[in-house]
Amino acid sequence: MGESTGNRTDIGRVPERGVVDRDAIEAVLDEGMIAHVGLVAGDGGAAHPVVIPMLYARLGDRLLLHGSPASRLLRTAKSGVEVCVTVTLLDGLVLARSAFHHSMNYRSVVVFGTATEVTDWDDKVAALDQLTDHVLPGRMAVLRPHTDKEVRGTTVLSLSLEECSMKVRTGPPVDDAEDMEADVWAGVLPLGVAVGAPEPDPLMPPRDAPDHVAAWSRGAI
Amino acid sequence: MGESTGNRTDIGRVPERGVVDRDAIEAVLDEGMIAHVGLVAGDGGAAHPVVIPMLYARLGDRLLLHGSPASRLLRTAKSGVEVCVTVTLLDGLVLARSAFHHSMNYRSVVVFGTATEVTDWDDKVAALDQLTDHVLPGRMAVLRPHTDKEVRGTTVLSLSLEECSMKVRTGPPVDDAEDMEADVWAGVLPLGVAVGAPEPDPLMPPRDAPDHVAAWSRGAI
Repeated sequence: MGESTGNRTDIGRVPERGVVDRDAIEAVLDEGMIAHVGLVAGDGGAAHPVVIPMLYARLGDRLLLHGSPASRLLRTAKSGVEVCVTVTLLDGLVLARSAFHHSMNYRSVVVFGTATEVTDWDDKVAALDQLTDHVLPGRMAVLRPHTDKEVRGTTVLSLSLEECSMKVRTGPPVDDAEDMEADVWAGVLPLGVAVGAPEPDPLMPPRDAPDHVAAWSRGAI
Repeated sequence: MGESTGNRTDIGRVPERGVVDRDAIEAVLDEGMIAHVGLVAGDGGAAHPVVIPMLYARLGDRLLLHGSPASRLLRTAKSGVEVCVTVTLLDGLVLARSAFHHSMNYRSVVVFGTATEVTDWDDKVAALDQLTDHVLPGRMAVLRPHTDKEVRGTTVLSLSLEECSMKVRTGPPVDDAEDMEADVWAGVLPLGVAVGAPEPDPLMPPRDAPDHVAAWSRGAI
């Protein structure tokens, strides 16, 4: 795994699950909706890890995070502390002939780095647009522009994708030879994101959901 | 939020999203399939956060993690370092009349603590059973027992749920008064876990998927 760009992103235990293809990494980040953001809180002896789920978006070779300026996590990250941002897509349950070889099919990307605050006004507006359109492509086109108050009232952090890595598991279970005749169903149960019928805001006059809502999907299984 | 059991689990920013109901917390942990496990890697100046997706299970008032004894994360956690384990369920996209008020409906549980290794043989076997049945209820009943080699070849960690907290968002978007007449669809797009048709292992003679596979589901939307 010498191709990865930093020691921390070397894949230690199961090298064949490591991926260094930048397109594949970007595809996972573009398909995901929630990142788990880790940082070290506290100082010295009281230092402890904190992991928080957050919305995110990718813009080029940067990962964007945002939230209230009052958010403890964003305030900590703003100050320049290192973060670890992990995005995981669960693709299936792998049902083997022994409990030991049960597994999951998944794709996960881990990004290490120091997040910096986006302060340039136009960059910040572009980031906010992307944070909305990442989850719901086409959404910004139907919304009014952000107000100055809203832009000021949001903290946006940007993290380089330079130091990142990806792990993947795909395919059927891999069982021990002595279990291959076991009287048990083995295979994969594919998982993905289910979408329900759009639920209109009760305060909205009746109207049909537009295509960017009605036709929303995230991957297909 | 004085009811939560530790300062780190106090809900700082949006108190109304905090939940201290133990049943609700256990329900989230039982519905989730992947935990994001954070720890502090490295020492002193090189300390940095690491967040890894892992299978997990709940057994009573403990959270169980497992993996290869060679796993870097499990080796680190075994030594007694503090972890933060976060489980997040994404329930829907909240589409507001302004980008600013877009949000997600979700349930997330954060557990802080020091994981300890499960070394008692019977406890370890019970933990391994639960780690399999957590994801696929009824699975252990159709599998052969774990071999001694498999039990020895797996590291199981146990983490108390004593110091945990939950955050929840539900319901329609909450917009500013001046946006309520906006010509835009607002509401919620419900999300859940989609299950595809079971994919039999090509190496298995044809057989029907049993109920615990064919009828598997995780929540409903």
